[in-house]
Amino acid sequence: MSGNLILVTGGAGYIGSHTVIELIEAGYDVVILDNLVNSSFESIKRVEEITNRKITTYNVDLLDVPAIEDVFQKHQFFGVIHFAGLKAVGESCRRPLSYYRVNVGGAMNLLNVMEKNGIRNLVFSSSATVYGTPKYLPLDEKHPTGGCTNPYGKTKFVIEEILSDICAADNNWNVVVLRYFNPVGSHVSGKIGEDPQGIPNNLMPFVSQVAVGKRPELSVYGDDYDTPDGTGVRDYIHVVDLSQGHVAAVKRMASKCGFKTYNLGTGVGCSVLDMVKAFEKASGKKVPYTIQPRRPGDVGSCYASTTLAAEDLGWKAQKDLNEMCVDLWRWQSMNPNGYRS
Amino acid sequence: MSGNLILVTGGAGYIGSHTVIELIEAGYDVVILDNLVNSSFESIKRVEEITNRKITTYNVDLLDVPAIEDVFQKHQFFGVIHFAGLKAVGESCRRPLSYYRVNVGGAMNLLNVMEKNGIRNLVFSSSATVYGTPKYLPLDEKHPTGGCTNPYGKTKFVIEEILSDICAADNNWNVVVLRYFNPVGSHVSGKIGEDPQGIPNNLMPFVSQVAVGKRPELSVYGDDYDTPDGTGVRDYIHVVDLSQGHVAAVKRMASKCGFKTYNLGTGVGCSVLDMVKAFEKASGKKVPYTIQPRRPGDVGSCYASTTLAAEDLGWKAQKDLNEMCVDLWRWQSMNPNGYRS
Repeated sequence: MSGNLILVTGGAGYIGSHTVIELIEAGYDVVILDNLVNSSFESIKRVEEITNRKITTYNVDLLDVPAIEDVFQKHQFFGVIHFAGLKAVGESCRRPLSYYRVNVGGAMNLLNVMEKNGIRNLVFSSSATVYGTPKYLPLDEKHPTGGCTNPYGKTKFVIEEILSDICAADNNWNVVVLRYFNPVGSHVSGKIGEDPQGIPNNLMPFVSQVAVGKRPELSVYGDDYDTPDGTGVRDYIHVVDLSQGHVAAVKRMASKCGFKTYNLGTGVGCSVLDMVKAFEKASGKKVPYTIQPRRPGDVGSCYASTTLAAEDLGWKAQKDLNEMCVDLWRWQSMNPNGYRS
Repeated sequence: MSGNLILVTGGAGYIGSHTVIELIEAGYDVVILDNLVNSSFESIKRVEEITNRKITTYNVDLLDVPAIEDVFQKHQFFGVIHFAGLKAVGESCRRPLSYYRVNVGGAMNLLNVMEKNGIRNLVFSSSATVYGTPKYLPLDEKHPTGGCTNPYGKTKFVIEEILSDICAADNNWNVVVLRYFNPVGSHVSGKIGEDPQGIPNNLMPFVSQVAVGKRPELSVYGDDYDTPDGTGVRDYIHVVDLSQGHVAAVKRMASKCGFKTYNLGTGVGCSVLDMVKAFEKASGKKVPYTIQPRRPGDVGSCYASTTLAAEDLGWKAQKDLNEMCVDLWRWQSMNPNGYRS
């Protein structure tokens, strides 16, 4: 079924691995390309268990052009979902050139090989961070982009610009850019989930590591924002909902859509303390926390307008906060040390 | 004199070749790296005639990392002036991926090799196009950047962002970004000059090709702008002035300046018809023209604030409109077919 064959770069990662499951369940065939720098081959083995399918996987770095070309020689892809990239905001400030080289350079290499092979269908893993500081809420897809405060966000913005320019120049390209809000939770099996290396950068992996006893307490940065309880408000979305959004995006891409951009969020803002309470309820564990000063660059509130995705992709997030927390806790308690356990 | 050795990428090009002369006259040693895609080895031979110096030149493409590394193995550079890149706005809209790969990818490769070799001094050839549509005039260096309407301009913006982020992460880097306004004219010898391939993208090479009889007439795009005579106003700067600005920038870089950005312009706006008249006077040739509709993306007026460059670089453009036109005409009439004559 070559018309159904999707290359997933970064398919061993958190969102990538969940998306592979949803693609297979929706009837697609999948090939994974991943350099396993921030991910583990174990996640692919578990996806194979869950789906009861063998998944062809290439340990390839997107900076290695001949290796990418080899993969495109071996398979006739219908399209590509491009997840692969570095994603730690703080690290991106310390190692900007690496982030630009890996994220922007890797994307350009991939696009160039795709073009050479006549594959012009792409779903790109972007982020709400491209909106910068919100000028209004909820954030819709027409909100200005750019003005990101860190190299990680800038790499996402730059890749969006490249994709938009490519589509403007050649209407054979079909590109769906997905701007993620805050993915959390895990597959219901508890077999795969987010597996941060070192200190988690994101709230919920930190919360769950506190609950499981790996960290003593949570630091909450700022309780004086203009929000109901003073802590930062974000739009948390269950990773399985998010992954199903990718299946919808692949279908949209297949309809020869040109260049399209969609938010993937729930449209509902939750505060840090909302999340802590929901997680305590779901896990039955106490999550001690202390209030720390605001972090530079953080905004008070950020949540999505979901209208365009609903109308145009026919996709809407289904899972609530409790389900996000229950599923996260299942993964965390079954795998206290992530894939290393 | 390794402390004086400057690598000039794109040193065979229009601004690069003029800058090599000024560097040598100021006492620097120069190595040129150029892939000769948009330039000619003949220009380097003529620079050698003018300076009476042999210039080590490598025919190397910045997408070829091992070849760049070889050059850095052979010489101990004090710093780099990075001119190399594609520069045609219209072509960038038709071939965006090439522009991003060559300009952004090439810059990232260069920066990576520099970093590996401990060379962290750079002057970068940027453009006033990074300002997008002016929100106020004259354009000073604090004017917002980004919002460029074409891939060429976006590549310059992206490279500026990368450089700024690199300097923020590591204060061993010294980077001077130079934002050019509209370079025109030629070296006084008439031996080197701007040598566009095909139809010139810029006004003055077109004007001079009309004067020399290579093209029947000039198209003036728009005579209904809010300017004194209705035609577009730009800040034309003599390429020798511009080149001397690079020598000043190299000195600034050597003072361990961190990340700095300077406009290189005259601060004086001239209309298309001003330029045509000045060129007719300088050349004694008639330049017939017709008025055409405005081109999308063009702005009415654009000129520089030159205060910061004057104060901080101690540099100011010296040459007037007549000298720009006289020198351009000398080059054009001595070399009616550019370096191919």
